[in-house]
Amino acid sequence: MSETFIDGEDHIFAIEGLTLGVTSAAIRKGDRSDLVVLLLEENTTVAGVFTQNSFSAAPVQICQQQLARGAPISAMVINTGVANAGTGEGGVADAKKICHELADLLKVKPESILPFSTGVIMERLPVEKIIAALPQCLKSQNKSGWGESSRAILTTDLVPKLSSRIFDVENNSIRVTGMAKGSGMIKPNMATMLAFVATDARVSVDCLNEIVKYATEQTFNRISVDGDTSTNDSFMLIATGTCGAPPIISNTDASFLKLRDEVTLVCEYLAKKIVLDGEGATKFIEIRVEDSISVEEARDIGFSVANSPLVKTAFYASDPNLGRILSAIGAAGVKGLDVTKIEIRIGDVLVVQDGGAASGYRELDVKPIMEASDIVVTIKLNRGKESVTIWTCDLSFDYIKINAEYRS
Amino acid sequence: MSETFIDGEDHIFAIEGLTLGVTSAAIRKGDRSDLVVLLLEENTTVAGVFTQNSFSAAPVQICQQQLARGAPISAMVINTGVANAGTGEGGVADAKKICHELADLLKVKPESILPFSTGVIMERLPVEKIIAALPQCLKSQNKSGWGESSRAILTTDLVPKLSSRIFDVENNSIRVTGMAKGSGMIKPNMATMLAFVATDARVSVDCLNEIVKYATEQTFNRISVDGDTSTNDSFMLIATGTCGAPPIISNTDASFLKLRDEVTLVCEYLAKKIVLDGEGATKFIEIRVEDSISVEEARDIGFSVANSPLVKTAFYASDPNLGRILSAIGAAGVKGLDVTKIEIRIGDVLVVQDGGAASGYRELDVKPIMEASDIVVTIKLNRGKESVTIWTCDLSFDYIKINAEYRS
Repeated sequence: MSETFIDGEDHIFAIEGLTLGVTSAAIRKGDRSDLVVLLLEENTTVAGVFTQNSFSAAPVQICQQQLARGAPISAMVINTGVANAGTGEGGVADAKKICHELADLLKVKPESILPFSTGVIMERLPVEKIIAALPQCLKSQNKSGWGESSRAILTTDLVPKLSSRIFDVENNSIRVTGMAKGSGMIKPNMATMLAFVATDARVSVDCLNEIVKYATEQTFNRISVDGDTSTNDSFMLIATGTCGAPPIISNTDASFLKLRDEVTLVCEYLAKKIVLDGEGATKFIEIRVEDSISVEEARDIGFSVANSPLVKTAFYASDPNLGRILSAIGAAGVKGLDVTKIEIRIGDVLVVQDGGAASGYRELDVKPIMEASDIVVTIKLNRGKESVTIWTCDLSFDYIKINAEYRS
Repeated sequence: MSETFIDGEDHIFAIEGLTLGVTSAAIRKGDRSDLVVLLLEENTTVAGVFTQNSFSAAPVQICQQQLARGAPISAMVINTGVANAGTGEGGVADAKKICHELADLLKVKPESILPFSTGVIMERLPVEKIIAALPQCLKSQNKSGWGESSRAILTTDLVPKLSSRIFDVENNSIRVTGMAKGSGMIKPNMATMLAFVATDARVSVDCLNEIVKYATEQTFNRISVDGDTSTNDSFMLIATGTCGAPPIISNTDASFLKLRDEVTLVCEYLAKKIVLDGEGATKFIEIRVEDSISVEEARDIGFSVANSPLVKTAFYASDPNLGRILSAIGAAGVKGLDVTKIEIRIGDVLVVQDGGAASGYRELDVKPIMEASDIVVTIKLNRGKESVTIWTCDLSFDYIKINAEYRS
């Protein structure tokens, strides 16, 4: 994936109808920006997917209620530093209070504000600090605020994650731009991840819902850093409708699939950046599970390998420990798996065949591939026609360091 | 559990009818003992449980076939250093060749020998070395060989795991003695674990099978080091029948439950020792999930917490990061879980209540408990009557070190 990662804020297209404001509310130490407001023009449509964790954070609960109501959304307010999760009724009241204050400033209904938080769990939000910083945040609104916003939403991740695409539909250019954060607790079901992707296409809420679910399944639900899941994951898809192209109101419209695929590409890029920026990650690993009976069994095997601490430490050590990969495949619990049919390749080298090391396999052929920072493992089950790709990273000393010292 | 860990070879009772021989077959570097033979007197009964991993090792496949046949078992041969897993047809032939040679030496049928291996996966067994060492191993047979054998079966684990109990049934003393190995890849389904537990009671194969399954479920399937599972796990229960007590031929016999519970206590001790000796472990953590609707949901929640790398690194750092525990509970996928009903205690301190931090909770009250080497976390779901206890350890720098440098 190396070449796709030539990016930078220069390549990010603004989305007409959406502005971003950034400031520091002093939630975190130092003067770091930690508060972002997204303002949406009238008639913007919004769809979202959220964490499956039973302990969903207060802002997640509020977002789900607001979106279920179907009323228009005017703004999104995002803070880092404190996740407002595991905070009970008080946490919900805190988030609502911030939404009310922002609504007053914007002269809109409080129900049209969606709140998002990321950071330490089980601490209460510094509500007064956030409210005090809102006017400054609104003052800084502009449509080119993606770069600064993408830095402001980071927590333990180091690199801003931004992606942008432009394509034509019936002589109209459509833009898709997104940003994300996330670096630990990353796993299916979008652990500790926030993503905001916007397009200037006009899209019905139904179509937007279909696209947000598809893109999530293909990208954010296919990554894993440490197998943990989080309380705050949220991925919002926003359509401002300012581009002039014909509206997309049905999934049979000519441009529906095009937009869906472009949004998915933006999300794939963001998802890979999240893995690449995984806590302590030194390597990016792509696990392709091919020729499975079902998507589910391919995904189970892919995640069993991706989440195995033993496999991950072997990658960290550049050790082609095939046994650990085999063992992780076998531990996935896939019924009736004939292990003698499985072929495994590391890079282009066939390493496993007939239930054991491939004939002629020499560790020294694989060693240079394992030493690279970008490794593809292909697991061919030879029992069906489905395939799934999972993206993950290695497990290093720094993962322990970061997570043992997170709060100090 | 501290006080139960006063042990030592002095407290290990020999089991009449079973002898152990130990030697070095030079499979591993240095002169380390790496080959053990257990000889069983005629009329001994044997039952076993094995890994659920689809890539079960060659010796596991052979053991399962022999036991299914129901013929008597004369001996068990165990090597460390090479696991003979992921070795295809050749690996099965290797293990069978060793069984044949040992059978010739003992003048018994090859089908009466069970093979066991543990060590590196996907390397072939040094068959000739092992065969050459068998006579020496048989020469050293004696009924007090438990201590030396328990050291010989270790791989990356450091401390021999031995346990012994004695109890009376109708004026006869019955002994139960066991040894185990295992330190990484430990999780439900008995990952990378070998255990051999013997009793001098006379027990029918049916009763022995019932006891081995019960004890596994209560002990070896309730531990987790890193959430990985292995290809070689085997737990054998052996009954020599030499003690003179009336035979146990039905699960309604008076002494059935007594024996079952004593065997389970021996296994619990061994299981806890495995966790305590987990790769890089600095702390022993007991996770009690109480008042669940079913055993399954309690186990799912317990393992979700026990296997979370974020929870495990927090314990390593003595950081009472309640948010990570909450998040892991929420990630267990238990349907209809009302998180506001959950109470969590660390040691005796109530830390979570009503979906957030308990009122009056102060981190400094919990800090000293987190700094101990032995921590109990109680998660009360308040929705049913079942409960499950899971034993695990923390995740430290040394886990990465051991597993990144395993083969060097």
